[in-house]
Amino acid sequence: MKTKLAILAFASILSGQLCLAQTNEPVNDWKPAPSNQQGKQYPQVNSEGRVKFRIVATNAQSVGVSFRDSSTFTKGEDGAWTGYTRPLDEGFHYYTINIDGAEVPDPNSQFFYGSSRWGSAVEVPAKDADFYALKNVPHGQLREVHYFSKSGNTNRHAFIYTPPGYDENARKRYPVLYLQHGAGEDETGWGRQGHAGLIMDNLIAEGKTKPFIIAMEYGGNPFAGPRPTNAAPATGGATNGTITGLGGRAFNFSAFEKALVDDFIPFVDANFRTVADQPHRAMAGLSMGGMQTRGITLAHLDKFSHIGVFSGGSIAVTNITDMAAFKKRVKLAFISYGSRELGTNRVGGRGFGGDPKANTAALKEAGVKAVFYESPDTAHEWQSWRRSLHEIAPLLFKD
Amino acid sequence: MKTKLAILAFASILSGQLCLAQTNEPVNDWKPAPSNQQGKQYPQVNSEGRVKFRIVATNAQSVGVSFRDSSTFTKGEDGAWTGYTRPLDEGFHYYTINIDGAEVPDPNSQFFYGSSRWGSAVEVPAKDADFYALKNVPHGQLREVHYFSKSGNTNRHAFIYTPPGYDENARKRYPVLYLQHGAGEDETGWGRQGHAGLIMDNLIAEGKTKPFIIAMEYGGNPFAGPRPTNAAPATGGATNGTITGLGGRAFNFSAFEKALVDDFIPFVDANFRTVADQPHRAMAGLSMGGMQTRGITLAHLDKFSHIGVFSGGSIAVTNITDMAAFKKRVKLAFISYGSRELGTNRVGGRGFGGDPKANTAALKEAGVKAVFYESPDTAHEWQSWRRSLHEIAPLLFKD
Repeated sequence: MKTKLAILAFASILSGQLCLAQTNEPVNDWKPAPSNQQGKQYPQVNSEGRVKFRIVATNAQSVGVSFRDSSTFTKGEDGAWTGYTRPLDEGFHYYTINIDGAEVPDPNSQFFYGSSRWGSAVEVPAKDADFYALKNVPHGQLREVHYFSKSGNTNRHAFIYTPPGYDENARKRYPVLYLQHGAGEDETGWGRQGHAGLIMDNLIAEGKTKPFIIAMEYGGNPFAGPRPTNAAPATGGATNGTITGLGGRAFNFSAFEKALVDDFIPFVDANFRTVADQPHRAMAGLSMGGMQTRGITLAHLDKFSHIGVFSGGSIAVTNITDMAAFKKRVKLAFISYGSRELGTNRVGGRGFGGDPKANTAALKEAGVKAVFYESPDTAHEWQSWRRSLHEIAPLLFKD
Repeated sequence: MKTKLAILAFASILSGQLCLAQTNEPVNDWKPAPSNQQGKQYPQVNSEGRVKFRIVATNAQSVGVSFRDSSTFTKGEDGAWTGYTRPLDEGFHYYTINIDGAEVPDPNSQFFYGSSRWGSAVEVPAKDADFYALKNVPHGQLREVHYFSKSGNTNRHAFIYTPPGYDENARKRYPVLYLQHGAGEDETGWGRQGHAGLIMDNLIAEGKTKPFIIAMEYGGNPFAGPRPTNAAPATGGATNGTITGLGGRAFNFSAFEKALVDDFIPFVDANFRTVADQPHRAMAGLSMGGMQTRGITLAHLDKFSHIGVFSGGSIAVTNITDMAAFKKRVKLAFISYGSRELGTNRVGGRGFGGDPKANTAALKEAGVKAVFYESPDTAHEWQSWRRSLHEIAPLLFKD
């Protein structure tokens, strides 16, 4: 009996493997994605990183998903269409469902702002997901704030992370990291899909970083019009204010530069217990936000001492007009990329400029405190940027 | 010439009116809804309160919307389906789009948690929308907090509104209103579609209410399973903990009662500058949250002095076991309904109990400070509840 069972088990393993090799059947260990809405069993993720979808569309002719190389979706007797993706990288991926030509959100997923819309995304659990897990540790607060921007003559909206214990000692003051989203995203990105608060809570609980404030504003969007509530944007910041390379489009960010420097920083300094000076002010951002960070910090070295550019180009020695002043003022130049962005350097190739790794090495050679971080096995996506925040935070404000 | 024009104009008005009467054509003054995603031109609302949708679904056989009595959707040459609703009440309405049998969110709308899902809603601008408009006045903060609940052995998630100026004077302490959402909604509801923060900011700017803290927790959902992160709920609160009448289903809220009384109130009192006593603590809620408010406050009169029940039943004299103690402790019993819920009393008819207006009058007769508010021309929807918060706030904590 024992032998028979063992043989059966062996045969079933063998046939399973053969079947896998022949038809590329996904491993059948699907679990609901952590990004699902409460109570929803789909989408599901398996140990290969494939994502399986289930969409009830009784009378549809075709259903699909925006991930390339996905399986054909087939309709079951229950009227539900199912299909699955190729193995995806660990982390967070935006997507849409297509039903008979309609691009719509998946009603089963939570919604996030990215790709210039509120819509679906799926989380493929990462091996290192623990660093942004919700734990029973002291938590900071993510505060939604409204304020009036004189430079833009408009009401603006931002999020401020205050670290655990912020409200306990009314005399303690904190450094501030200004942290920017990418193109097609907005000020909700870092707090929501970026898990900036949980990353900080966990790092602080482990004693790995100094507590600091994170301030997150809307940096504009070259792919969408202005916000309905926004008046005409101001112009004429200290930078040339133009980013090129976003799919060939130029994006002028001088309105954001003015809003940040003239209105947002003063608002944060007036309403939060900051140490309001250059040594205690950092700026970082991802993709477009990284390009903005580079442009704005280099033009305002009197305001920022720590610079973080995540998947948004790098700082070449030739970008620095006065190296002696730069070295004196800049305590950190942190450049990061997902490993899948390097080599072929997909993003660099789109005009972000040069080889970021070599540029950063040259900066270091020139005596700048420069750090390059490569996120393993990730692309131009949030897992690269969560890790980048996790890496840069312990390097900030070390005195 | 003048006469000719006048005749033409008159004829055109006449024919327009005749046309309107014959085919019930909607008034052609459509404007993008304020609830749209940034840059989206649809859905649109006209002066009748109709909502027009535009959904690109090139190969679909049929497209529709969940509002009853909507027009048939027709497909244009651009592959976009359009259709419109009957005139809707002013305010906020959840909906879904149906594409060939698939119930999906409208990709053009912002998303809100209600009807037990994140999905679409549309705002039909109300005549009184100014009371929750974003203005250039001092703003409070909406703070997202995580804390550990011992009673449920789980991490919990809540929102806290702190009024303008909260961070300016570290010695000033504030009363607290605990404010609950309805069934199928969650702790995001009051801050997001309820506009609780803007309602308070504007009232405070006008000097119409004392500044106070609002604390918003998740009260559970009889229509969905427990949250994935939740451990088994605790049982055995002081109330019987059961609400009936939600479509005939019974819902036990003793776990929420324990979480609120044993964990959330102590968390708020420990982490915010509250006046931590019964005279400075209120509870209110809408629909299911109103029923919870009634059950929990009546069982804990030592903890709450002000009670607000919005579209969630009323308090009858017979509900009060010790009227003398009740009158001594309760400074306000505020009951409200949308006018379209009364008369036929759709909600009361589903088991919320009795005639709320008559019950409140009887309470007043018995010497209780009881107030009944009827929201004009609204139903069991957020416009009734925004107005209810706007009405109750000035009555709270008057000393």
